[in-house]
Amino acid sequence: MATPGSGFWSFGSEDVSGDPDNPGTARAWCQAAQKFTGGISTKLCALLYGDGEKPMETGAKEDPTALPRKPTCTCNKKPCGCQKADINYAFLHSSDLLPASDGEVATLSFLQDVMDILLQYLVTNFDRSTKVIDFHYPNELLQDYNWELADHPQTLEEILLNCRTTLKYAIKTGHPRYFNQLSTGLDMVGLAADWLTSTANTNMFTYEIAPVFVLMEYVTLRKMREIIGWPGGAGDGIFSPGGAISNMYAMLIARFKMFPEVKEKGMAAIPRLVAFTSEHSHFSVKKGAAALGIGTDSVVLIRCDERGKMIPSDLERRIIEAKQKGFVPFLVSATAGTTVYGAFDPLIAIADVCKKYKVWMHVDGAWGGGLLMSRKHKWKLNGIERANSVTWNPHKMMGVPLQCSALLVREEGIMQSCNQMHASYLFQQDKHYDLSYDTGDKALQCGRHVDVFKLWLMWRAKGTTGFEAQIDKCLELAEYLYNKIKNRDGFEMVFDGKPQHTNVCFWYVPPSLQNMEDNEERLNRLSKVAPVIKARMMEYGTTMVSYQPLGDKVNFFRMVISNPAAAHQDIDFLIEEIERLGQDL
Amino acid sequence: MATPGSGFWSFGSEDVSGDPDNPGTARAWCQAAQKFTGGISTKLCALLYGDGEKPMETGAKEDPTALPRKPTCTCNKKPCGCQKADINYAFLHSSDLLPASDGEVATLSFLQDVMDILLQYLVTNFDRSTKVIDFHYPNELLQDYNWELADHPQTLEEILLNCRTTLKYAIKTGHPRYFNQLSTGLDMVGLAADWLTSTANTNMFTYEIAPVFVLMEYVTLRKMREIIGWPGGAGDGIFSPGGAISNMYAMLIARFKMFPEVKEKGMAAIPRLVAFTSEHSHFSVKKGAAALGIGTDSVVLIRCDERGKMIPSDLERRIIEAKQKGFVPFLVSATAGTTVYGAFDPLIAIADVCKKYKVWMHVDGAWGGGLLMSRKHKWKLNGIERANSVTWNPHKMMGVPLQCSALLVREEGIMQSCNQMHASYLFQQDKHYDLSYDTGDKALQCGRHVDVFKLWLMWRAKGTTGFEAQIDKCLELAEYLYNKIKNRDGFEMVFDGKPQHTNVCFWYVPPSLQNMEDNEERLNRLSKVAPVIKARMMEYGTTMVSYQPLGDKVNFFRMVISNPAAAHQDIDFLIEEIERLGQDL
Repeated sequence: MATPGSGFWSFGSEDVSGDPDNPGTARAWCQAAQKFTGGISTKLCALLYGDGEKPMETGAKEDPTALPRKPTCTCNKKPCGCQKADINYAFLHSSDLLPASDGEVATLSFLQDVMDILLQYLVTNFDRSTKVIDFHYPNELLQDYNWELADHPQTLEEILLNCRTTLKYAIKTGHPRYFNQLSTGLDMVGLAADWLTSTANTNMFTYEIAPVFVLMEYVTLRKMREIIGWPGGAGDGIFSPGGAISNMYAMLIARFKMFPEVKEKGMAAIPRLVAFTSEHSHFSVKKGAAALGIGTDSVVLIRCDERGKMIPSDLERRIIEAKQKGFVPFLVSATAGTTVYGAFDPLIAIADVCKKYKVWMHVDGAWGGGLLMSRKHKWKLNGIERANSVTWNPHKMMGVPLQCSALLVREEGIMQSCNQMHASYLFQQDKHYDLSYDTGDKALQCGRHVDVFKLWLMWRAKGTTGFEAQIDKCLELAEYLYNKIKNRDGFEMVFDGKPQHTNVCFWYVPPSLQNMEDNEERLNRLSKVAPVIKARMMEYGTTMVSYQPLGDKVNFFRMVISNPAAAHQDIDFLIEEIERLGQDL
Repeated sequence: MATPGSGFWSFGSEDVSGDPDNPGTARAWCQAAQKFTGGISTKLCALLYGDGEKPMETGAKEDPTALPRKPTCTCNKKPCGCQKADINYAFLHSSDLLPASDGEVATLSFLQDVMDILLQYLVTNFDRSTKVIDFHYPNELLQDYNWELADHPQTLEEILLNCRTTLKYAIKTGHPRYFNQLSTGLDMVGLAADWLTSTANTNMFTYEIAPVFVLMEYVTLRKMREIIGWPGGAGDGIFSPGGAISNMYAMLIARFKMFPEVKEKGMAAIPRLVAFTSEHSHFSVKKGAAALGIGTDSVVLIRCDERGKMIPSDLERRIIEAKQKGFVPFLVSATAGTTVYGAFDPLIAIADVCKKYKVWMHVDGAWGGGLLMSRKHKWKLNGIERANSVTWNPHKMMGVPLQCSALLVREEGIMQSCNQMHASYLFQQDKHYDLSYDTGDKALQCGRHVDVFKLWLMWRAKGTTGFEAQIDKCLELAEYLYNKIKNRDGFEMVFDGKPQHTNVCFWYVPPSLQNMEDNEERLNRLSKVAPVIKARMMEYGTTMVSYQPLGDKVNFFRMVISNPAAAHQDIDFLIEEIERLGQDL
């Protein structure tokens, strides 16, 4: 019989006696679960979820009445103290949570229940027997649920149900068979760090309100600059909301460096500028040029070789051409890891051209920057140390949760001169601490989300060598895929040779097309294969991989691997699944 | 004696029998804790934290050896199954967590322990007896801890310690006495939603990978447009990484609307543009103009009245002046809730001017937009329905966790035309679902963080009426502060009259200055008062409020209230604390 007191918390006297700090939390039940031999996880889940069923595996529509209901007490106090009563969320609202004066118990209980929902989801994320996606068309989801925002509050029971429904239809981006984007995977330490970041809920603009995070950003950016190869890690940088913004910041700084008067006088006061990037580069270079008033026509697309690498002689030719027209070349944006082919532009040769013509060299390493962490692969970025600025997104190849993108700049102080507006209400000059730690005037943003903690904590947890191992493994898997399909019937590579990054680009050619003549009709039919297979993948929910056309190549699959959860069996599965879903086309 | 089986998990048979879904989680121990009468929270904490002490209250340096150590087993297996062994994080690394094949138990245990650390922090966040900040100078924090990133991994024990240390020095932005920024408070449902967002770890660019969040964004933006007053909620919009970016997006769209050729041809192809905003407006308007190649000289600052509101006749005069010079007025950015005074520009009169001269009307309601949720206060934004675009940051007055900023645009489709680059690898035109739900080409960003879920879930939990109550309460507190200090010895208002928003601007005049003649020496001494009081506040850690000079006004305090946790007693405390810390100056 339970009576209030320390024994009330025990799982059996042996278990608790050694650890007085350990009340009945998950740690304790995990510890207990370890005593089961064989099939630990199944049993643990059964205990955790009550009935042994993993939720969210069925395609059935969720029914609120089918939820596990908590027993209702009769006293109707919130929260009640009745013997048999649990906290009954059907009677509670968000206004009953902290900062409500008696909200502590309800808050801890509610947040713990949310956490249980998240932990359930997490476990299924890595489980190959679950679907990557439970796909529904937009009109279906809009019709099947009421997503509307009303005048009146919902109960916490309904809020918990909203959380479950949201996760039911979420894509499992950490699933070992989710290959759809450059950002995949779900790192447990990164996730924990992101939870902590949300809980700290602060803003990066001043040291005053984010002392630890500002210092972590300082340390982390310096480390990244060291790895790039800038002496002593000197320079500057910032975490921005994504690679497109980082690239735009670089373009902004490059323009300011050449024509500082542009800040006050605008483009009207300076000559016509031209930027250069490869035809395989990311579209954000053009977006940035459009935004900055440079115009997309002033972005010259340099030709690539058959592997998608910028041809330096073409770059030089186009720079000379622009100068002859009286335009001013101000930026070359080389790409380290293109989006589709995963190509690395030849940075040393490009650096030579930039030096010769005195043009700012930016490296968009949003995707490929992660390879700097690998002793085996970093040679692909040789020459990056000669760049003036580098975009590097740890949320891609390093598996940091979204968003985490860094812009690194070699020249110290220029970000501040380029962007500062001296808002007196934030950057008071008479503060009592070293103002160089107030970073808010270095970029366009005023408030800035804390993106560094995830990366910093993961780096502490893995060490540089841990990131290296994870990246090497993904590259090894890409090579495994390449080797398996390069001579396989029904597969055709988009370009020859071993992948440089984890991008493997290929067509699946169904039997009906395999013996067809290479004419327009075949191309036309081939272009429809990948979209149909992709649609079927999503409907089955078994795996997800991206496809696109590029230049004169019709729709092909672009496989990328950035998730350390992926294994050889998942590559094998992908190949067989494509064959299964596409053989009748 | 404990034996494996269902009884193993029980807290006493009565408790479990009614609720088979409920294993030994926090819900259960909360339920149990409720059986204690009187001082529930203290006892709950004592049970939760083992020793009844709340962590992080002492200023003592953290010593890793002082951490509660877990008993170490002798088998050294990871995780071990020994009778008395807990999971010993000193032997575990991040590589032992999921997706490691036997990582489930360690992962659930580790994440639960992180959660315990977060819950501990949360409770202290709302506790008035704890400090708002445990302030240390940057060099102190850098010297006292090793923040560096190494080659080799740390153990999970060290990672948990890193989490504790990070929170120890964090600012408690949810503390009822933290008034330093426009974004304060910590909403429990918003926090839960942010945790879920991190766990779902996806990207907003396509429906394919964020189906539910994309629909929520659709529903929420439409609702916000309805509240603005656009018929049927028609129009467009997006969540962006903050108000400065939202304002820049508006400027970009306004320019494109007038001169669509600017996208390809740049500023060289179009006449010189001029933007207008008040002298009290946010500096992001100038930052945006600098970035967009318009130049800060082309941002005309319109005079304000003594309350900080734009004077419409001055706006009209300056528009005429610009046109006479041959420039093209393209944007007026009116402010609804200025940063320092909290002033609302007269939107109806400004709309008339914009209509007359055919200029895009943008309303920067980053701070004041929240008042649209209040039937009592929304009249202050009358005329906003005539705007072409509106910035509205739910992460400010509505208390949504950072970051959550919306740009709303009246004309449908223009965001897409302005920003789209048709990246074929993301926005395939042959997808099997309705492509209008792929939002990634509406803005400059490619990847975009999920910022909507926090707002959506809070809205469901509070209803519109809940936001209204919270906002009305903050405004009532501001009025309470104003009434208390307007005639109080030692306090002097920066401007006369009741505050329109929660901004209350005042000088504290210490006794030594109270009878001084109003000359330059007095001003000089007065300008030093607020910085010293602020520095002392931070060193004591008791409260935080911002100060700044503005125009010819020397440093004054700007009090703002956006935290629903604040109460009358906190306003009283602030006044007395300022007097206590400043009376000797």
